[in-house]
Amino acid sequence: MTDDTTENTDFRPEARAPRGFADKRARDLRAERAILEAVSAVYERYGFEALDTGAFEYADALGKFLPDSDRPNEGVFALQDDDDQWMALRYDLTAPLARFTAQNWETLPKPFRRYAFGPVWRNEKPGPGRFRQFIQCDADTVGSARPEADAEIIAMAVEGLEAAGLPRGAAVLKINNRKLLNGLLTAAGADSAGQKLAVLRAVDKLDRLGVDGVRLLLGEGRLDESGDFTKGAGLKGKAIDSVLDFVQAGAGGRSATLDNIAKVVAGSAEGDEGLAELSRIDAALTSLGIADDQAFIDPSIVRGLEYYTGAVFEAELLLSTTDEKGNKVSFGSIGGGGRYDDLVARFTGNVTPATGFSFGVSRLAAALRAAGREPGGAARGPVVVITFDQAHMPEYFSVVGQLRAAGIPAEVYLGTSGMKPQMKYADRRNAPAVVMLGGDEIAAGTVTIKDLDAGRMAAEGLADNAAWKAERPGQQTIPRDQLVAAVRKIIGG
Amino acid sequence: MTDDTTENTDFRPEARAPRGFADKRARDLRAERAILEAVSAVYERYGFEALDTGAFEYADALGKFLPDSDRPNEGVFALQDDDDQWMALRYDLTAPLARFTAQNWETLPKPFRRYAFGPVWRNEKPGPGRFRQFIQCDADTVGSARPEADAEIIAMAVEGLEAAGLPRGAAVLKINNRKLLNGLLTAAGADSAGQKLAVLRAVDKLDRLGVDGVRLLLGEGRLDESGDFTKGAGLKGKAIDSVLDFVQAGAGGRSATLDNIAKVVAGSAEGDEGLAELSRIDAALTSLGIADDQAFIDPSIVRGLEYYTGAVFEAELLLSTTDEKGNKVSFGSIGGGGRYDDLVARFTGNVTPATGFSFGVSRLAAALRAAGREPGGAARGPVVVITFDQAHMPEYFSVVGQLRAAGIPAEVYLGTSGMKPQMKYADRRNAPAVVMLGGDEIAAGTVTIKDLDAGRMAAEGLADNAAWKAERPGQQTIPRDQLVAAVRKIIGG
Repeated sequence: MTDDTTENTDFRPEARAPRGFADKRARDLRAERAILEAVSAVYERYGFEALDTGAFEYADALGKFLPDSDRPNEGVFALQDDDDQWMALRYDLTAPLARFTAQNWETLPKPFRRYAFGPVWRNEKPGPGRFRQFIQCDADTVGSARPEADAEIIAMAVEGLEAAGLPRGAAVLKINNRKLLNGLLTAAGADSAGQKLAVLRAVDKLDRLGVDGVRLLLGEGRLDESGDFTKGAGLKGKAIDSVLDFVQAGAGGRSATLDNIAKVVAGSAEGDEGLAELSRIDAALTSLGIADDQAFIDPSIVRGLEYYTGAVFEAELLLSTTDEKGNKVSFGSIGGGGRYDDLVARFTGNVTPATGFSFGVSRLAAALRAAGREPGGAARGPVVVITFDQAHMPEYFSVVGQLRAAGIPAEVYLGTSGMKPQMKYADRRNAPAVVMLGGDEIAAGTVTIKDLDAGRMAAEGLADNAAWKAERPGQQTIPRDQLVAAVRKIIGG
Repeated sequence: MTDDTTENTDFRPEARAPRGFADKRARDLRAERAILEAVSAVYERYGFEALDTGAFEYADALGKFLPDSDRPNEGVFALQDDDDQWMALRYDLTAPLARFTAQNWETLPKPFRRYAFGPVWRNEKPGPGRFRQFIQCDADTVGSARPEADAEIIAMAVEGLEAAGLPRGAAVLKINNRKLLNGLLTAAGADSAGQKLAVLRAVDKLDRLGVDGVRLLLGEGRLDESGDFTKGAGLKGKAIDSVLDFVQAGAGGRSATLDNIAKVVAGSAEGDEGLAELSRIDAALTSLGIADDQAFIDPSIVRGLEYYTGAVFEAELLLSTTDEKGNKVSFGSIGGGGRYDDLVARFTGNVTPATGFSFGVSRLAAALRAAGREPGGAARGPVVVITFDQAHMPEYFSVVGQLRAAGIPAEVYLGTSGMKPQMKYADRRNAPAVVMLGGDEIAAGTVTIKDLDAGRMAAEGLADNAAWKAERPGQQTIPRDQLVAAVRKIIGG
């Protein structure tokens, strides 16, 4: 390798990526691609068609202008086009879908069922594990108000996550409906938008604060340990009891939960509507073969976004790992979604029923890996053919050609270093084996193979008995026409 | 579908994408994914590892600051981060590779062989067929000065394009080396950078202006038909003859061309170096099984970018199509690359030899399609189960479940329209068939299948004989357990 120092003393930029943007190497990409391929196959089997929109949308289409500002929200990456219009990088895949659907409504098959995946960008403060670009995967049905459309999204999410590598029992879809709590609050006279939002915020803290903490937040307010007071939603005793009864109505089985909910929300028109929708979702899920342990109704699920108008879903990972102190760490929510009927109306003025589910691909890949389930299986490097002599290049290339023709990744080392650095190179590439062709081998029509996998396993104490060693000679010299078979034995192909 | 007009009279953004950004539907995405999957498999077999960097780089790392400007070049999409540093969206995949390599040099396996694909962004004036975001696919070897590294890139490009759907003979890699012309010009005394650039520009017009036009541009200059005068490179008679001999030295076979070139460039050190490199590329290509019709040496190839320092490659499509007037339209160049030894040095000050090849994925997909070779094969819609009655939803879902379990894309129509719009929906989805379950079928345990593919073929006059009609009944009622087999017969699965 040439290593001459140039005489150029001009400005030299520092080689670094902007904060919050990750360089992804082969292992990460392999995992993400395996997940996306498996999930796409499921979504296409459900009749959803692929769509990809550009990275930019006009900022007004994203709805990301602050009320009293002449610039888009700081949460997006925005710039002015040369006609002075503000464009911003998409921060999710739903806003571009709403724009696309509104733009093409007349010619689209309706309901419009689409899935999409790709990067989204958030202009937020980066930190450890917090990126400003990440991959999302979404599926939505636009133009169907039927609860069966929600059920299909849920069933597809269940099947998609299983295909991505989460065995049954490793994840669950939790379902709720915004109309239930809304109806209950309206019946209790707590029907201002602000009060409803305060109730949702309180309910959302059930996991963290428990029933007693939420009770305080539903009422006058709560003083935390640090002495800070959070003002409550201002509900009265009976309404508080109803809300707490509701959020605790989950009973494992979907039918039993529906019975419990019916007792609490009975009598409010909106609550009854929500209940009827959930019942139809339950029936469709049953028809689609989705059991109670794969998707259940959990009235405590909130989902942050304000735009949900009916059913909401959350996918929770039941996998866990342990931290450095040996404590169990749960991965929690991996995605979610729900029914949003107002997004397309922003453009057209016409309410257009829609429902969808979104999950974070990089997040799922990380969780699967932490739980010991590498998506796409372990990555393998190429077989490396060691370079001894420029004059023998044709022989080296002939050997890699043989391996590649058999579908085995292989390469000739093309640096200029000696034997030891070449072995180190092969190790860094995670090569299963190196192939050596010296003058003797070439004269004899043989090759020498060194089994690096065997070396790695021995180093990990995984292969320390005589039978195994006999089976896996660390190094062997064989006729060239036995090369492919010998390498296959090493890589187990 | 709800279609209530909301009473919201707030601002309604227009539903449109920013200029130059395309919405891609299923067919385009299927084609691009098929190409990328096939090419990735080839590149991995050659031992190249996948890499993806973030969309943004610091503008100084991209080298996209104009000399006397405090803003990045207008050709990129740039914005200031909250620490006031300018970031810009990547405009190719080479600049991020140079940054990544410089940043991680110590820990990378060397030579570093990586491939990458993904969107790049160019802030240029959009127009018909001219986009500001498009997909590139690159492979590069960083840290090897060996001509064999160039040969591998060329061989891999040949094999990759064949895997992407270009049969042998539909594309060719043309190879040249910058050092040949440079050496020739130095020997002729024409060695200023400006004069060399003018010669390259003149040679690049050989296709369009022919030998006589180029001769004028190599000398004093050329007056075109419109009366505009283009100043020439200012070469003298003998030098002009040498350049014209050189660019016409191509002889089909690589060996014969090398012999021709040797006669023209003999005696210049740089020319001899270029010739030696090309000879080693030729030898390695032969070892790798790449024949003269797949990759040949063409001394007239220039490749625009100024950063190439040695070998240059261009992939030319030999496919053609006909325009509306029946004239033959060639697709021309689909990609290219070459050796660039100075990009990493921008960061580190150390010259680092590198070589690579890049092609436009959307452009290749469009060319393959225009030539009648749809990448990934024809896209198929899902089988659509017609919805007659909400009460029968469980039956409909049971039937789609049966089809999906057999791997056949299928869906229940989830709109609320009647029979005719549902048939229209199925047609828009390009459904091969619709399945109907009325009360009679449900009672009898049967399904009725309507073969939409047969209808389409009949409409195109492709299926107008009695034998075919007997084989493909337009509509049939069969027991439910024969459904999968009947649909398979229609889709040919």
